[in-house]
Amino acid sequence: MQNSIRIGIAGYGNLGRGVESAIQKNPDMQLVGIFTRRSPSSVSPCFAETQVYSMDALLNEFSDKIDVLILCGGSKDDLPQQAPIFASKFNTVDSFDTHARIPEYYAAVDAPALANKKTAMISIGWDPGMFSINRLFGEALLPDGETYTFWGKGLSQGHSDAIRRVPGVKAGVQYTIPSTDAIEQVRSGARPELSTKDKHHRDCYVVLEQGADAATVEQTIVSMPDYFADYNTTVNFISEETLLKDHEDMPHGGFVIRSGNTSDAQKQVIEFSLKLNSNPEFTASVLVAYARACYRLNQTQQYGAKTALDVAPALLSIKSPEQLREELL
Amino acid sequence: MQNSIRIGIAGYGNLGRGVESAIQKNPDMQLVGIFTRRSPSSVSPCFAETQVYSMDALLNEFSDKIDVLILCGGSKDDLPQQAPIFASKFNTVDSFDTHARIPEYYAAVDAPALANKKTAMISIGWDPGMFSINRLFGEALLPDGETYTFWGKGLSQGHSDAIRRVPGVKAGVQYTIPSTDAIEQVRSGARPELSTKDKHHRDCYVVLEQGADAATVEQTIVSMPDYFADYNTTVNFISEETLLKDHEDMPHGGFVIRSGNTSDAQKQVIEFSLKLNSNPEFTASVLVAYARACYRLNQTQQYGAKTALDVAPALLSIKSPEQLREELL
Repeated sequence: MQNSIRIGIAGYGNLGRGVESAIQKNPDMQLVGIFTRRSPSSVSPCFAETQVYSMDALLNEFSDKIDVLILCGGSKDDLPQQAPIFASKFNTVDSFDTHARIPEYYAAVDAPALANKKTAMISIGWDPGMFSINRLFGEALLPDGETYTFWGKGLSQGHSDAIRRVPGVKAGVQYTIPSTDAIEQVRSGARPELSTKDKHHRDCYVVLEQGADAATVEQTIVSMPDYFADYNTTVNFISEETLLKDHEDMPHGGFVIRSGNTSDAQKQVIEFSLKLNSNPEFTASVLVAYARACYRLNQTQQYGAKTALDVAPALLSIKSPEQLREELL
Repeated sequence: MQNSIRIGIAGYGNLGRGVESAIQKNPDMQLVGIFTRRSPSSVSPCFAETQVYSMDALLNEFSDKIDVLILCGGSKDDLPQQAPIFASKFNTVDSFDTHARIPEYYAAVDAPALANKKTAMISIGWDPGMFSINRLFGEALLPDGETYTFWGKGLSQGHSDAIRRVPGVKAGVQYTIPSTDAIEQVRSGARPELSTKDKHHRDCYVVLEQGADAATVEQTIVSMPDYFADYNTTVNFISEETLLKDHEDMPHGGFVIRSGNTSDAQKQVIEFSLKLNSNPEFTASVLVAYARACYRLNQTQQYGAKTALDVAPALLSIKSPEQLREELL
């Protein structure tokens, strides 16, 4: 048994907490500590033994004490700024998920990682990540076919924020729900043309301000351009107690379905799906598995930026290649 | 664009025919020919332009004319004998699927491939193959969990043969059906303990010999030890016309479900499934995608036996790494 892989966590929100928990479930890893921009004494980790340090200490004092640094900041502001710097000192894993900006992000992280013989795994998680792998499998295994991605049932932060800005709304959440009809059409092998709004509808749970008119609020929500107007949208009014009791989790998930033909007569369907009670905890668990792969890639001199598409499955497992062939193949 | 990858097919049954068709759907590949133990003139390929040669010519005349040889023989007799020989002269891909014998088969193919700087992809297909990858993903991404494999709806050759040996049976087929109840239990995150027979039932379609007694035949089938006695088995009597019309295809598929917890409170479920109208055509299509990976691994000096667990997804795709990051990630 090799020594443990020493992990650092940079940034401590929901995702960072998920990584802290996930490391407990992987006996070949040990957590060096959490690195935060807040005052370390103000942070309460999930486990009493977890060390908390200032982010400033990271670059100066920890570059030879951490095998893989997991970046748990946001894609909008944190990662584009942090990742190129950290990738010059550490092997890194992050969950950068702004799909359209991945090529430029890749380039920005690849150069410092290569120059310093580090390995930087970018855009790890489930979408991008596991869903990307399954979109690739679908195309490669059934070249004559169509790929469909459905999201949900999932809590959408952006749409929940939009609801909360409606006058008369005290609180609320929005779930994106994949259309059962559309999924069944795709599973049948029919290869329908479907837009995002054909594939999903939107369920809102709203707590009204005292005295607000339910019909007016509902009308404002369902007719909101971009967010709801083009979708089949349902508005449910609930009490504040119910909101707190039933809508605290951050569920998400979805489906990647490839429908294709291997010959004119023969249809084939490949489906991958996730049903996640906690989106951040699952994403964190994926990051930790890819930290193992990151460490191994670096050990074999595979430097620079890598994505989930570049990682052989065996590199994710704690088991030896012999065990994998015997037990899982 | 690189030159085409030159493919040879060794063995021409259902799987070999599937490979011949699949190559047509992959524009970066060209088929050198089919190699058969039968008299080449007795073989009718699916496409008029396909060349057919004697298996004897393969080792002597084609070792520098083929980039990847796809072995389409059976796992019981053909592959254990052929693969070590072919792997000393060619890069190979095969679908060896006797799970319990994979470690010894791996060793037998690895040595000659390594010694001759060839790459031998073994046990490619969907189980072993894509299902193995998903069993690995499940364990790695949710270490605290259980993995469930369900097979079907699928035609079982062994059970169909067993039916046809029953006195009074003229013809028949058997389908393995995964239990909907068991799948729903697993999807709920309950982590039940389930044996193979809890997870599947067996549907038989039988054509009686003239004058045979249906009740006796049914009783013989459902009480047959090993094959049916322990299972919930249904026997349907049909006409020979119906058998030919409705039961000619070779459907198969199944589900790999991982149910796990990322923390005490949070359940997560990962599911991969296949619904295949033609088992041999899909397996063939997988073999062809892995032939691309086999060629690329060999080009980068990665010699010896490899399994689906050793292949980074990107190696399967005709697209460049840049395209993959932009379009699929």
